[in-house]
Amino acid sequence: MSISATQSLQGLTVATPTDREIRTERVFNASRERVWQAMTDPKLVAQWWGRGNKLVIEKLEVQRGGHWRFVEHAPSGLQGFEGRFREVTPPERLVQTFEWDGMPGHVIINTTVLHDLGDGRTKLVNTSLFHTPEERDGMLNSGMTTGLEQSYRALDALLMKS
Amino acid sequence: MSISATQSLQGLTVATPTDREIRTERVFNASRERVWQAMTDPKLVAQWWGRGNKLVIEKLEVQRGGHWRFVEHAPSGLQGFEGRFREVTPPERLVQTFEWDGMPGHVIINTTVLHDLGDGRTKLVNTSLFHTPEERDGMLNSGMTTGLEQSYRALDALLMKS
Repeated sequence: MSISATQSLQGLTVATPTDREIRTERVFNASRERVWQAMTDPKLVAQWWGRGNKLVIEKLEVQRGGHWRFVEHAPSGLQGFEGRFREVTPPERLVQTFEWDGMPGHVIINTTVLHDLGDGRTKLVNTSLFHTPEERDGMLNSGMTTGLEQSYRALDALLMKS
Repeated sequence: MSISATQSLQGLTVATPTDREIRTERVFNASRERVWQAMTDPKLVAQWWGRGNKLVIEKLEVQRGGHWRFVEHAPSGLQGFEGRFREVTPPERLVQTFEWDGMPGHVIINTTVLHDLGDGRTKLVNTSLFHTPEERDGMLNSGMTTGLEQSYRALDALLMKS
């Protein structure tokens, strides 16, 4: 796998291993179990996934074949996101589909792996696979990395709480 | 676009334009409007999509962003299928996602185009795009073409009725 582009944004590393993928890495100051919990407990997800905006968790069935659906109350209006779980292996690996209501039927496969770095630190590696290079590029040009870093900073804050 | 493999099964033409696609073609003895109706009216879909098995249409929202979900009562047990509409252009073009409960999160993009051949005949061309060549090959090896031809023969019978 070659890394054709890499950028770092406030601790977030973004790479494009192939023309249909985006790979991001981010380190959190919390154990793998706590990061896993923040990713799978609806009460916790609601506190960081929406980048500080109100987030309604309509569905979060964390099991193979389960569905999820979140609605973000953004300043620009309601934004719906949904998908389905392909693999759930606590506390290390989640594979799920991702679809934004604004582009229905354009489906991304998100593979999230949590690496235990020791000393209470965890590296979150996410790989997004798109059906076409055009969909991948559209995501890169949508301000995705800024939004993702906003979410991850909210996750930092949540993980510092307890 | 090159056709790397073509086979014909009882009037069904199957080709693999790329390593992530399957393209099928089939001619029906009915107008484009009637084929469109058979593809989008739940009462009609229930009569052919399940290959002769009982088919429960749990949801069929034929509009951009709408969801669909069918449950086939096959001899081997219940088989669920679902997806979402990306494009709906009556009576000629449907783009929708397709997922089988047995492989949740493995999503196919199905583009169906109806060509009016005149003389009350319609050619249905379907292109399925997979995320990976492996998923495409898995579908080809699953007996998909036999099942599709069974469905299309049931559709022939439905279209002859009125």
